[in-house]
Amino acid sequence: MSKLLIVGTVAFDAIETPFGKTDKILGGAATYIGLSASNFNIQSGIVSVVGGDFPEEYLTMLNNKNVDTEGIEIVKEGKTFFWSGKYHNDMNSRDTLITELNVLEHFNPVVPQKFKNSEIVLLGNLHPLVQNAVLEQMETKPKLVVLDTMNFWMDIALPELIEVIKKVDVITINDEEARQLSGEYSLRVAARKIQEMGPKYVVIKKGEHGALLFNDDQVFFAPALPLEEVFDPTGAGDTFAGGFAGYLAKTKDISFENMKNAVVYGSNLASFCVEKFGTERMQTITKEEIYDRLEQFKELTQYEMSISN
Amino acid sequence: MSKLLIVGTVAFDAIETPFGKTDKILGGAATYIGLSASNFNIQSGIVSVVGGDFPEEYLTMLNNKNVDTEGIEIVKEGKTFFWSGKYHNDMNSRDTLITELNVLEHFNPVVPQKFKNSEIVLLGNLHPLVQNAVLEQMETKPKLVVLDTMNFWMDIALPELIEVIKKVDVITINDEEARQLSGEYSLRVAARKIQEMGPKYVVIKKGEHGALLFNDDQVFFAPALPLEEVFDPTGAGDTFAGGFAGYLAKTKDISFENMKNAVVYGSNLASFCVEKFGTERMQTITKEEIYDRLEQFKELTQYEMSISN
Repeated sequence: MSKLLIVGTVAFDAIETPFGKTDKILGGAATYIGLSASNFNIQSGIVSVVGGDFPEEYLTMLNNKNVDTEGIEIVKEGKTFFWSGKYHNDMNSRDTLITELNVLEHFNPVVPQKFKNSEIVLLGNLHPLVQNAVLEQMETKPKLVVLDTMNFWMDIALPELIEVIKKVDVITINDEEARQLSGEYSLRVAARKIQEMGPKYVVIKKGEHGALLFNDDQVFFAPALPLEEVFDPTGAGDTFAGGFAGYLAKTKDISFENMKNAVVYGSNLASFCVEKFGTERMQTITKEEIYDRLEQFKELTQYEMSISN
Repeated sequence: MSKLLIVGTVAFDAIETPFGKTDKILGGAATYIGLSASNFNIQSGIVSVVGGDFPEEYLTMLNNKNVDTEGIEIVKEGKTFFWSGKYHNDMNSRDTLITELNVLEHFNPVVPQKFKNSEIVLLGNLHPLVQNAVLEQMETKPKLVVLDTMNFWMDIALPELIEVIKKVDVITINDEEARQLSGEYSLRVAARKIQEMGPKYVVIKKGEHGALLFNDDQVFFAPALPLEEVFDPTGAGDTFAGGFAGYLAKTKDISFENMKNAVVYGSNLASFCVEKFGTERMQTITKEEIYDRLEQFKELTQYEMSISN
């Protein structure tokens, strides 16, 4: 069974959208990634840190989904990372209201021994130095390292980010971040410039507008499923990354052709994530629902055209 | 050979984009539609109006591409419709600088006798009363009527627009217009509401983010081709509609399955349109270039996934 090592935040979120608001609920990049990856028959484990205020039941929930939490350090006297944000009416942009780093501030990630030979490593959104510290602990070279990041780190830790970007095979970022990182408006040109920074594959996430996968001169695109209603976009990008990496870990095939499927799987899982607040929907997905939606993706994008004069 | 009747503006445009600006050049919805449809082996004709200032050579160019211009009235003492606009840096939005209706103000469309039995009618962006007047002149019921419109007519002639929408089979509008027309933010819900207004098929154009085709509970999506550079988006929507209708006229198959291909063809042709200012690129496309880009579309969107545990 393939191993997927996940590093990222495990956190509390308080979210406000046009549809309502929540108190502190379970959130964090690694949480979404773990839940997303739990839909594949793989061995996944999270490296992260929480405070003494983090409910045991959340860890149990992850364990019940076969997500290993040995690598989640619990700092008893500390408080869990907390983020609060409010989405605008179009759901495409948001304001951060509160960021309390808490235990994240002095986080030294420790990779459990059993995950030091993971085939796939997903460096979720966190300080690039933490992402790098995880990579350095690997005892065997992973088959594939996937990095997810955001504009925040480009703003405050660009040199460190560029160092870790050099070492990864795949980077997943959103369209605005791809433009910021490359200084190019055209996503096609941006992707090429980012490839020159290191990653062989660049995935550009466009939210409701889908995702693009670039490799050399090849491009693949998967749309987001057009939904009746988007309830809460929080974690959709992490869920996408978790589905992408989870599918590759399960199928053990990192060819470009199979990465297309991984992008479709990532979009598929992200389409569930946004249907309810926080991780709620991700905790209840069934295999049947996933397969049903894979069919919908197929109908949405596949066509038969014979070209003739 | 199928007949495609096109109604829309034939005009002068002056365009400014981040890449440069033009003097008065050939433009107009019907011009783009006609050029796009000229890539299919069909008989197409334009109903429109121009002034005495409209160069004969533009009509000759259209005729050379097998676009019939008998229905383009020439008002010798009048001036051709003129539009001037400036695109913002992101190329997704623009300001209209000048609109001179000129001969359009008192335009009474006259459908040439030979086009009164057209199988497909494409009502391009024009006052809904003009669109309706064209429909009323048809002697045989068209197999398919496609309507393209814009927010401008929703703002100043909504009741008339709703009347003509009732009579058409397909409506093509952009995402913001679909939201305005339906009062719904979700494009899926918006499409359903617009279908309830009359059209069995709704095509929502999202510019660089592709196009959605809705019919009852079916949805199909075609992305825009990710381009190195978008030079001038003017006419891309009209070109899309012309490719969509032209393909259906050529293949004589208005099933949902074949409309998927029509959407791909429309996106394909629109991807050429934006590569140069105005109609310049549309005048030089070759069949080989189109086929080559159809292959690129296939690679961009088609995948093979076997679903298994």
